Amino acid sequence: MLGGLPGSPAVHRLAGMTASTPMGTSNRDTVGELGEVGLIAAVTARLAGGAAVVLGPGDDAAVVRTSDDLVVATTDLLVEGVHFRRDWSEAVDVGHKAAAQNLSDIAAMGARATALLVGLAAPADVPVSWVLALADGLSAEAALVGAAVVGGDVVASDQLVIAVTALGVLDGRAAVTRSGAKVGDIVAVAGRLGWSAGGLAVLSRGFRSPRSLAAAHRRPQPPYGSGPAAAIAGATAMVDVSDGLMSDLAHLAEASKVAIELEVSALEIAEPLRDAAAALGRDPLEWVLTGGEDHALAATFPAAVDLPEGFVKVGRVVLGAGVSVAGLPAGTYQGPGGWRHYSTGRPG
Amino acid sequence: MLGGLPGSPAVHRLAGMTASTPMGTSNRDTVGELGEVGLIAAVTARLAGGAAVVLGPGDDAAVVRTSDDLVVATTDLLVEGVHFRRDWSEAVDVGHKAAAQNLSDIAAMGARATALLVGLAAPADVPVSWVLALADGLSAEAALVGAAVVGGDVVASDQLVIAVTALGVLDGRAAVTRSGAKVGDIVAVAGRLGWSAGGLAVLSRGFRSPRSLAAAHRRPQPPYGSGPAAAIAGATAMVDVSDGLMSDLAHLAEASKVAIELEVSALEIAEPLRDAAAALGRDPLEWVLTGGEDHALAATFPAAVDLPEGFVKVGRVVLGAGVSVAGLPAGTYQGPGGWRHYSTGRPG
Repeated sequence: MLGGLPGSPAVHRLAGMTASTPMGTSNRDTVGELGEVGLIAAVTARLAGGAAVVLGPGDDAAVVRTSDDLVVATTDLLVEGVHFRRDWSEAVDVGHKAAAQNLSDIAAMGARATALLVGLAAPADVPVSWVLALADGLSAEAALVGAAVVGGDVVASDQLVIAVTALGVLDGRAAVTRSGAKVGDIVAVAGRLGWSAGGLAVLSRGFRSPRSLAAAHRRPQPPYGSGPAAAIAGATAMVDVSDGLMSDLAHLAEASKVAIELEVSALEIAEPLRDAAAALGRDPLEWVLTGGEDHALAATFPAAVDLPEGFVKVGRVVLGAGVSVAGLPAGTYQGPGGWRHYSTGRPG
Repeated sequence: MLGGLPGSPAVHRLAGMTASTPMGTSNRDTVGELGEVGLIAAVTARLAGGAAVVLGPGDDAAVVRTSDDLVVATTDLLVEGVHFRRDWSEAVDVGHKAAAQNLSDIAAMGARATALLVGLAAPADVPVSWVLALADGLSAEAALVGAAVVGGDVVASDQLVIAVTALGVLDGRAAVTRSGAKVGDIVAVAGRLGWSAGGLAVLSRGFRSPRSLAAAHRRPQPPYGSGPAAAIAGATAMVDVSDGLMSDLAHLAEASKVAIELEVSALEIAEPLRDAAAALGRDPLEWVLTGGEDHALAATFPAAVDLPEGFVKVGRVVLGAGVSVAGLPAGTYQGPGGWRHYSTGRPG
C-alpha cells in the first residue's frame, strides 16, 4: 500500500477521469510517478470503440446497448504470481488472456460479447508502459468479437490484480446453460485442449519451444464464434473449458443430472503436444483431459444435429453421474483433475 | 500467493460451482482450509435473489433482465489497507461499502441497479466467517435497491482485493451524464457530505464517537432513489460524490464546459460534524467540501425545476471553468482537493 491509509480513499475509474498530466517524460515511467489521473487518461486514449457502446469511459458508469431485454455478465480476477507472471508473459499477452477468459464465458452462454469493464490494482512501481500494453491487449482481444472496453478503475495495491467483467447479448435467443444436457445427446468440443497446459509445462522447464505451445499459454485462442453457432444449432448445454475438460464437463454433468462418457480416440492430440510431451517425459493426454485456460467450448447436442463448423464429437451423454473416459489404459490417468484455488496439489 | 504458480491457474467463479464441501467444522475456519469450492458454495447459499435475475450464480455467466435495450455498468476495486482496514470495519460493513460505491455510480446515471458481480482475491488465512459476512453485506446493500449478487469469482492472493461490478437499467429514460450542465442551471446535492471523512478523522485518532460519524465511514448511506428521481425531474447532469464535492463537481464542470459556484452558506454542517471538528481542532467545512465516500449525488437542474425530495440547492452553473466557493473566508481552504491514488498527500 502507498503511504498508509489515505484520508479519503475513494474510487477512481476510467469513467470520470480526463487528461491533465503529460506523458512520456522520464520521471513518469512508473504508475506511481505518472499518477492515477494521467494513467487513466493515457489508457482511455488507447481504447477502441465498439458498436454497442452508447456511453464509454468518462462518466460514473458506461451505457451499453443490448439486442433485446437481456444482458449476459461474468467477472474474473487475474492475480500476478497466480494467473500470470510478468517474466513469462508480455503485458499485451496478459491483456489478451484476461479479456479472453471473460469473453469465452460469454460465448459459452451462446452469447455475443459487447463490452468489458476492467479494474486494475497495481503497485506504484509498475511501469506505465506495462499498463498501456495491458490495455492494448484487452482492447485488441475485445475487438476480435466487436466488443470494447467501456469503463474501469485504477487503484493502488501491493500486488497486481486485474478484474475483468464482460457483458454480452443473446440476439433474441435463450441462454445455453450447463443444465440442459439430455441422455442420448452427443458431446462435442470446439477449440484447443491441452495447449496452454503443455505450454506451461514447457515454460516451467525453461524451454521456449514448441513455440506454438508457449504462445498458447501466453495468449489463448478461444473459438468465440462457436458459442452463438452452437446455440443456433440447438446445443442443449455448454461450458467454457477453463479448468480442464474433465473438470468442466463434470460441472455440466452435475448441473444436467447426467453422466458423460468421453472417447479417448476422439480426442485429437496435436503434433506440438506430442513433441513437447515426448521431450518432457509427460503424457499429452493428461494435458488434453485436465489442462485449462485454452477456453475451448464443450457442448452437448441432440444426436441428430449437424455439428456447427469447428465442433468435434468427443463423447456422449448417458444415465448416471460424473465423467468417464472410454478407451483409456488402466492407471494412465487419475481423474478428474482441474485447478482449485487454495489447494496445494491436484486432486488425486 | 499460494504454493507458487499452479499448473493450470484457471478461473473460478460463483457461477459454475456447487456445494460439495461441508462447512463449520473446526478445520475449515479459513478460506485456505475450506477451499474454493466450499467457499463459493457457502457464499452462494447466502445470496438473496432479485427481480431482474434470469440466471444467477452457477453457470459460465449470469443473465439479467433489462428494462429496455440499454444496460448501465460500472466497476470498482477495494483494496485492503487502501480502501478498508479489517481492524476498523466489520466485514459486513465492507460488503455494504463495496456495494454502495458501485450502486451509487448507477444511481448517478439516473439508473436503477439490478445486479452485482463480485470478484474476491483473498489470502488463505482470511477467516471464512469474514467472507460470509462480506457476502451478507454485499447482498443486503444490493437488496436495498432490489438488486442481487448474480455472479463472481474467488481467487487466491497475498492481498485482499474486492472487485465489484454493478449493472443497472434506465427504464426508458436517457442516462444523465456529467456533460449536460448549462449556464443558469442550479446545483443541488442529495445525501450526506463530509460524514465519512469526519468518521475517518475520528477513527484515526482512536475515538469511537460521534458514533454516527464512525458508522458513516464504515457504511455509507447513498440516496439511491434520488438518482432516478433527479432524472425524472429533468436533471441536466449528475455525478456521484465519491472523491469529494469540489473534486467531483470539477469533473462535471469540465465535462460540461462550465464553471460551478458553490455557496458556503447553503452547505449544511451537521451537528456530529461540528462536534467532531471541535474535538479534533479541525474545520468541518473541509470535510464537507473535500470528503469523499459518502456517495451523495450532485446534480444540475434548470432553474425553474422543482427539486426532487432530498435535493438541496448548493450553488449554480456559470460561464467559465472550475469550481469556486462563494462566502468562504480567505485562507480557510486550499481547494480543490479530493483523493488521488499514487499521491502522497493532498493536492495543495
